[in-house]
Amino acid sequence: MKIVEMRVTPIAISDPPLLNAAGLHAPYALRTVVELVTSDGISGIGEVPGGVATTSALEAARDVIVGFDPYQMNAIRTALEQRFGGGDTSRGDSMGESRGDSPWDRRVFVHVASAVEVACFDLIGKATGRPVCDLLGGRVRDRVDFSAYLFYKYEGAGGELGLNTDPAAAGWAAARQKPALDPDGVVAQARAMCDEFGFRSIKLKGGAFPPDEEAAAMLALRDAFGPDVPLRLDPNALWTVDTAIAVGRRLHGTLEYLEDPVRGQENMAAVAKALDTPLATNMCTTSFDDIPGSVRHGSEQIILSDHHFWGGLRASLELGRICRVFGRGLSMHSNSHVGISLAAMAHLAAATPNLTYACDTHYPWQSEEVVAGGRRRFVAGAYEVTDEPGLGVELDREELARLHRRYLECGLTERNDEVEMQKVNPGWKFEPVRW
Amino acid sequence: MKIVEMRVTPIAISDPPLLNAAGLHAPYALRTVVELVTSDGISGIGEVPGGVATTSALEAARDVIVGFDPYQMNAIRTALEQRFGGGDTSRGDSMGESRGDSPWDRRVFVHVASAVEVACFDLIGKATGRPVCDLLGGRVRDRVDFSAYLFYKYEGAGGELGLNTDPAAAGWAAARQKPALDPDGVVAQARAMCDEFGFRSIKLKGGAFPPDEEAAAMLALRDAFGPDVPLRLDPNALWTVDTAIAVGRRLHGTLEYLEDPVRGQENMAAVAKALDTPLATNMCTTSFDDIPGSVRHGSEQIILSDHHFWGGLRASLELGRICRVFGRGLSMHSNSHVGISLAAMAHLAAATPNLTYACDTHYPWQSEEVVAGGRRRFVAGAYEVTDEPGLGVELDREELARLHRRYLECGLTERNDEVEMQKVNPGWKFEPVRW
Repeated sequence: MKIVEMRVTPIAISDPPLLNAAGLHAPYALRTVVELVTSDGISGIGEVPGGVATTSALEAARDVIVGFDPYQMNAIRTALEQRFGGGDTSRGDSMGESRGDSPWDRRVFVHVASAVEVACFDLIGKATGRPVCDLLGGRVRDRVDFSAYLFYKYEGAGGELGLNTDPAAAGWAAARQKPALDPDGVVAQARAMCDEFGFRSIKLKGGAFPPDEEAAAMLALRDAFGPDVPLRLDPNALWTVDTAIAVGRRLHGTLEYLEDPVRGQENMAAVAKALDTPLATNMCTTSFDDIPGSVRHGSEQIILSDHHFWGGLRASLELGRICRVFGRGLSMHSNSHVGISLAAMAHLAAATPNLTYACDTHYPWQSEEVVAGGRRRFVAGAYEVTDEPGLGVELDREELARLHRRYLECGLTERNDEVEMQKVNPGWKFEPVRW
Repeated sequence: MKIVEMRVTPIAISDPPLLNAAGLHAPYALRTVVELVTSDGISGIGEVPGGVATTSALEAARDVIVGFDPYQMNAIRTALEQRFGGGDTSRGDSMGESRGDSPWDRRVFVHVASAVEVACFDLIGKATGRPVCDLLGGRVRDRVDFSAYLFYKYEGAGGELGLNTDPAAAGWAAARQKPALDPDGVVAQARAMCDEFGFRSIKLKGGAFPPDEEAAAMLALRDAFGPDVPLRLDPNALWTVDTAIAVGRRLHGTLEYLEDPVRGQENMAAVAKALDTPLATNMCTTSFDDIPGSVRHGSEQIILSDHHFWGGLRASLELGRICRVFGRGLSMHSNSHVGISLAAMAHLAAATPNLTYACDTHYPWQSEEVVAGGRRRFVAGAYEVTDEPGLGVELDREELARLHRRYLECGLTERNDEVEMQKVNPGWKFEPVRW
């Protein structure tokens, strides 16, 4: 089995104007779809956060990848390191790149490595008739729980662009057009999302409003949903240590975990020490290079894995082992995505024994899809991992082409939530620590 | 693919009277061969250190294993934990067992888990036509280097039993009948073994004679082999901290690494701090439960992996990642074994990027074999990992039956080097710390 072709397709998918620490989601989220085709005509796919940097890097990786047997993941990884590290193998898993201050991860190399590896696993699964989870040690669960991922949002912002509007939609599809700017709005969004998808845990993306307002929203969610629905709040490291401790104490007993209240492992450790509520992160411990610091400082109790930026599925299993060894819980981070990433996340989660928290997903916020059969369904808040070969999804080539044209037309080349926010709030600036 | 049969075959293989910290090798080394057979008639094999405890546990695992799809390694592992942990999943990777004070690892559960997992990988490899290394991420090397593993030995001890004697043998086969009790004997053994197998690094099993004598042997090896042949010494934790520091200083610049000079992570850390020579271990950091202590204390620079007691091939890859994360080197430990273990060790090493040291093997000390085609060959000190499916070895059922009869007849039920030593030196007692 040999890879003879590598197709790299950047796409733009409609995305609602969700508020977050960095500003506002643009009308389109950028993703890049990678397709590897073998000499015997089998096709394997992967999906990663898009933008011109990752897409260009994937294009630059093509001549490295073509010719490889997809089983040779170690050799592929080494070849990519040599291409992007200039032969310097001492630069660590992130190849010297930093994730940046934004809520999302800006590293290119880890995303390239992940896209290629997932497509290789999909290829192997299809060639052997096995679901990807079986290639990762086999499933420990058939149903992977996801959480309701709430966002603050203005009514109409972005709506004037004609996006995400489905006049016939009921339930969640209608509710997601509504504002969510205060506790009542947040609770209403949560009810609509949980009713539609069956989610049984709830996360609010914070960092959009002053901490007290966001804390009030969490308390309102607790009142509305009772004690049995786990709640999480994620202000994306916008708070000072003092603020985090004060808010954390106010929310004592309310949260399953508090995600990235502050910036950096030392600050996280200071907050972790002061609070009973566990801290989680996908910002201060985001690569294997960060693990020794996490152990040294005790910066968090839970790590949110993400195969897109930990470098792939095998690396994520290794992270799972490290979490077990050092007593860290394991959850899963998400960005806006379509069904390829959703399937990969679910297969990984299905094969990770200690991934015991419901995973994050932005999936309900999108309405477009590149996989055949259209939008994937959640059943009682879970994604059901089937026995279909590979990731269990195939490309809808018409939709892929349409969303690729959209990418070419929309003019976006990278995610920049600050610029989008300035369209609504002129002069607004991103601040790494705001409150 | 479903496992319909599990065959557990304890065997006894001829073993020379090798001296070590625990005494003397018995005339036979005990191994247990596990064979899993699927409904479509494919057979997968594994091999682990034998003895009645592990063999009985494997027998007790049969009704847990039969019925599983071999891809479901996570579920098999969970089922084994439930069987042997009584449903208590909080007992860690060693299921509450201790490795004991002896140079070899006495835990049962990790060996059971390893035997079954290796056989599952062999099954999957045979079913898909892929070598096991490809199921572990693919090879990073085709040739796996092994080291010459020297032992002190008396002439004749054990010889009267008529073992290991091949009157027609030249080279190594003749040399291994000779004594090695002083530097000259050690150097002669090294020359014979390196000439025969092409090994390019050398390890001496110490702990048999006072530290100064063993240090003199290492200096003699350095003189004889020059600066380009890496040398290692392993006294199996028999030394005090003071002795280890004194001997380590005498051997400054002589050793690639000093293996387990002292007992326990704290003592190892004290020695590591005092010496420039790196320390290696397969005694103080032998399971994932030990990793936090290793990081906390800084007990060694190099971990000797061993898939037999780390719980399998996947666990060993995870150990590899942990070594990269925490700046530990990675080498590989051995016990007396035949070709199934040799193949599994080589496939694992071939797929482990950071396994950069030559692996240990006792293989030259054995002369019997249970794999078809007889004894495996080293070429220029390396085992060549082929593209043959699975482990690339098949059972020689006649030899397996013969060595099983030997097991039944020989009367040995567990390894006990102290009892053997007492046959030569009446009253000899094992001491955990001797010098």
